[in-house]
Amino acid sequence: MRVYVLGAGSIGSLFGALLARAGNDVLLIGREEQVKAVNESGLKVIGVENFEVKPEATTSAPEEPPELLLLTTKSYSTKTALECARQCIGSDTWVLSVQNGLGNEELAMKYTDKVIGGITTNGAMLVEWGKVMWTGRGITVIGKYPTGKAEFVEEVARVFNEAGIETGVTENAIGWKWTKAIVNSVINGLGTVLEVKNGALREIPELEGISIEIAREGCMVAQQLGIEFEVHPLELLWDTIEKTKENYNSTLQDIMRGRKTEVDYIHGKIVEYAHSVGLEAPRNELLWALVKAKENLNRGSDNT
Amino acid sequence: MRVYVLGAGSIGSLFGALLARAGNDVLLIGREEQVKAVNESGLKVIGVENFEVKPEATTSAPEEPPELLLLTTKSYSTKTALECARQCIGSDTWVLSVQNGLGNEELAMKYTDKVIGGITTNGAMLVEWGKVMWTGRGITVIGKYPTGKAEFVEEVARVFNEAGIETGVTENAIGWKWTKAIVNSVINGLGTVLEVKNGALREIPELEGISIEIAREGCMVAQQLGIEFEVHPLELLWDTIEKTKENYNSTLQDIMRGRKTEVDYIHGKIVEYAHSVGLEAPRNELLWALVKAKENLNRGSDNT
Repeated sequence: MRVYVLGAGSIGSLFGALLARAGNDVLLIGREEQVKAVNESGLKVIGVENFEVKPEATTSAPEEPPELLLLTTKSYSTKTALECARQCIGSDTWVLSVQNGLGNEELAMKYTDKVIGGITTNGAMLVEWGKVMWTGRGITVIGKYPTGKAEFVEEVARVFNEAGIETGVTENAIGWKWTKAIVNSVINGLGTVLEVKNGALREIPELEGISIEIAREGCMVAQQLGIEFEVHPLELLWDTIEKTKENYNSTLQDIMRGRKTEVDYIHGKIVEYAHSVGLEAPRNELLWALVKAKENLNRGSDNT
Repeated sequence: MRVYVLGAGSIGSLFGALLARAGNDVLLIGREEQVKAVNESGLKVIGVENFEVKPEATTSAPEEPPELLLLTTKSYSTKTALECARQCIGSDTWVLSVQNGLGNEELAMKYTDKVIGGITTNGAMLVEWGKVMWTGRGITVIGKYPTGKAEFVEEVARVFNEAGIETGVTENAIGWKWTKAIVNSVINGLGTVLEVKNGALREIPELEGISIEIAREGCMVAQQLGIEFEVHPLELLWDTIEKTKENYNSTLQDIMRGRKTEVDYIHGKIVEYAHSVGLEAPRNELLWALVKAKENLNRGSDNT
């Protein structure tokens, strides 16, 4: 399958490497440093598996369209990335987002109606340019967005599974996106504010009750929007905390590295959707403000 | 005036020293280390003013009742302290709480109906046993609790003002307690979770809106309880942040020293009162859980 990976960060590089190893025709589209490293000395995967591949890499999307455009930028870069890559979104191109947060598929739908929504629980970390650590094997779920079936989705799942990316197909992609976003609202919210590993959320008694309250807030918004869950967020929450107890969540990793976070696309979107249906989401709003404040303190604006 | 100061910590030691200097008959009731230091080498005040006095000090309340029992323990010690001092609460003894948080006056009312509620914005810090730093001159407001007038309150205010404790009298003590508690719910909540000086709450744009939301939550509870404000919490909030911008709030100071905080008597009480009138207080509840989690992490229970 001809696949462009738009955003060659941690998950993009991991999926790109696995797909390339399986013989797919992969083009990584990413930042200059990453592209230079991959073109010069290939793409290394360490961790769960250890191997090296040499996919094509470039900083800007070519004209000719791929079969699959895999969207793996940070959510705050989706809009710009899609605009820059618009010329390669052909009439037969499917766009698949496996990004965290909400709203990415909606942006893709401005360019095509062939959109696939996905979630993944694989863990990856770019340890240096050209080298990605697969920190934990997880599952991936994809489906026509927002809901429904499409033959091409089955085809993508087959290709992913063949490449070693364990993937299931759903007819309720939007439900899965919300389930994952709600899980992230709890883990990334509390974990980032307290600067603790995911496991702490089960170890500190006061956090268990409040975790349920935060999740419930997201569930009420989803319910009001008519979204149904295939797996209840609370079920995925406890499972994710257990499986990732030694990890720092991605938002906290961003804070630790002085980078912008995806909080606008997790808590921010839940608050936005809440308001759109006449609800409040005070817990998400407070967590959003606290993470924003931490981003701000990171930039040293507390000294101005 | 014959005054017993029950709880010779920072504010208790400061008020005790000022009252003793003005010629009042002061007995400090406190922890063994503080009592020993005061009995051996007197009580030193540094900071806003610098002086030394030698009030009486003891670890347990005597039998004979004072005119005024000044309650200055941490809120979580009020119940035990009052129970240990019950024999000195005579029929003419007034009990005055200038403690942070809610619920202390209610505990005092189990022993007497002569209760005065108070708030103070004076800053004090016990730098070593027997030595208190007056970190900032503030005002004190006292009044018959929960509301109303009493001649003795005027007398206490006169004695306090003569001693250099700038004090006003109110007929709405409970309103002031709530105003102060709501201000603390914002400053101590956000400041502790983010580990920043009070001034950061005005410097980080995202915190201004959320500060108002947190304060509004407490105001709705107070309103439902029929409590009126003499000074609106938001007005006192901005004023307090401005005047204490270089300070760490008392809850954060407790966390930094690995001590228990008063969060149960600030956020915890607001949540409790909210539930008692059929309201929710999700922002206070989340801040409560986050501060509790920090207390817990302090004790190292994240490793168990």
